Amino acid sequence: MRHFTLQEVKSWDRFYRGNFINSISGFKSVSLIGTVDSNNNANLAIFSNIVHLGADPALIGFINRPREASPHTLSNIEETKTYTINHIHADFLDKAHQTSAKYKKEESEFDKTGLTPLWTEDSKAPYVKESSLRYALDLQEIIPLKQNDTFLVVGAIKHIYVPIVAIQPDGFVDLEKVGSLASLGIDGYYKTSLLKRYSYARPNQDPTELPN
Amino acid sequence: MRHFTLQEVKSWDRFYRGNFINSISGFKSVSLIGTVDSNNNANLAIFSNIVHLGADPALIGFINRPREASPHTLSNIEETKTYTINHIHADFLDKAHQTSAKYKKEESEFDKTGLTPLWTEDSKAPYVKESSLRYALDLQEIIPLKQNDTFLVVGAIKHIYVPIVAIQPDGFVDLEKVGSLASLGIDGYYKTSLLKRYSYARPNQDPTELPN
Repeated sequence: MRHFTLQEVKSWDRFYRGNFINSISGFKSVSLIGTVDSNNNANLAIFSNIVHLGADPALIGFINRPREASPHTLSNIEETKTYTINHIHADFLDKAHQTSAKYKKEESEFDKTGLTPLWTEDSKAPYVKESSLRYALDLQEIIPLKQNDTFLVVGAIKHIYVPIVAIQPDGFVDLEKVGSLASLGIDGYYKTSLLKRYSYARPNQDPTELPN
Repeated sequence: MRHFTLQEVKSWDRFYRGNFINSISGFKSVSLIGTVDSNNNANLAIFSNIVHLGADPALIGFINRPREASPHTLSNIEETKTYTINHIHADFLDKAHQTSAKYKKEESEFDKTGLTPLWTEDSKAPYVKESSLRYALDLQEIIPLKQNDTFLVVGAIKHIYVPIVAIQPDGFVDLEKVGSLASLGIDGYYKTSLLKRYSYARPNQDPTELPN
């Protein structure tokens, strides 16, 4: 076990530090966020810092980098107040990762990567047709973080598309069956395999009865 | 593909809805957060909504549930301004999940589950000795989310312990080698296997050259 102090971390070059710090917070959700501006120009970008905020109301948050680093998704959501989140699977991972390139505002990542926009009555923003689990949200709030100019974007779920075979009797959605990927760091993508599901933990359980 | 509207989601019972909505945001980081109150009473709790906020300064965020549902970690961080985040591995997963039981404030989850507090000079808060990747943070800010009374807790990394064999030449930390788990929903835990790491995506890459 190697001990690193903040002083040492600060001395590293930015790419090494970025890879290291991005990794230690652990495996992440990774999805494509679809948006449009007020002229219906589509944008698609990959995001890995997505959090569950609550089930009732059903709220999801994501972290957007500083505006100068990642402007289009944020400004489109500000303009049209809506966006879609689309899971990523192995068969279009190359295209999904390619959306992280810095295209110009007038260039659509759908055109540039060959992913297919799916326009519906649900949402002004397009879904990704290739994605097997997708949902549409309405913007609730954009919270700027003063420490580093990032943003927490809070959205309320309005529509959800899920393969019915992945939904278990208790509502749990088996994302391994959907083929949704996890991510690590800036550029690592992972398959998953279930180790264990638990029942609700109760305080009166004797820890000596725990198998490990 | 089954389409669910918000109206239908709202009609479900809270356990089914909780499992479903917690799942669709995808695989998550999962870690144990160690804290102490001002009398050095230790607390340990499992958290799965952890986000990378930035590498310079090195900032990590996590979502804390409403105060009445999950009060101890939050009040301890308010009192002592410090906490540790500790990755979870298969060999102590049962104990880690058991920390989610509602113990009383004066009961330490370390005592109740048999996990070992590791006290250091780094941090007032204890690390988890069984964890192979752990880091200590200083509180920067607690941001209340008005939509559902949850909180985004923003912390600055001060100390990091990582197995040296897991650190790749470019700074990427191979968490598969560390054995850190991912989580899904409220109670699902997953192993991971690397599918692919990419290089930095550039806009001039021809999408027709992408292998899929």
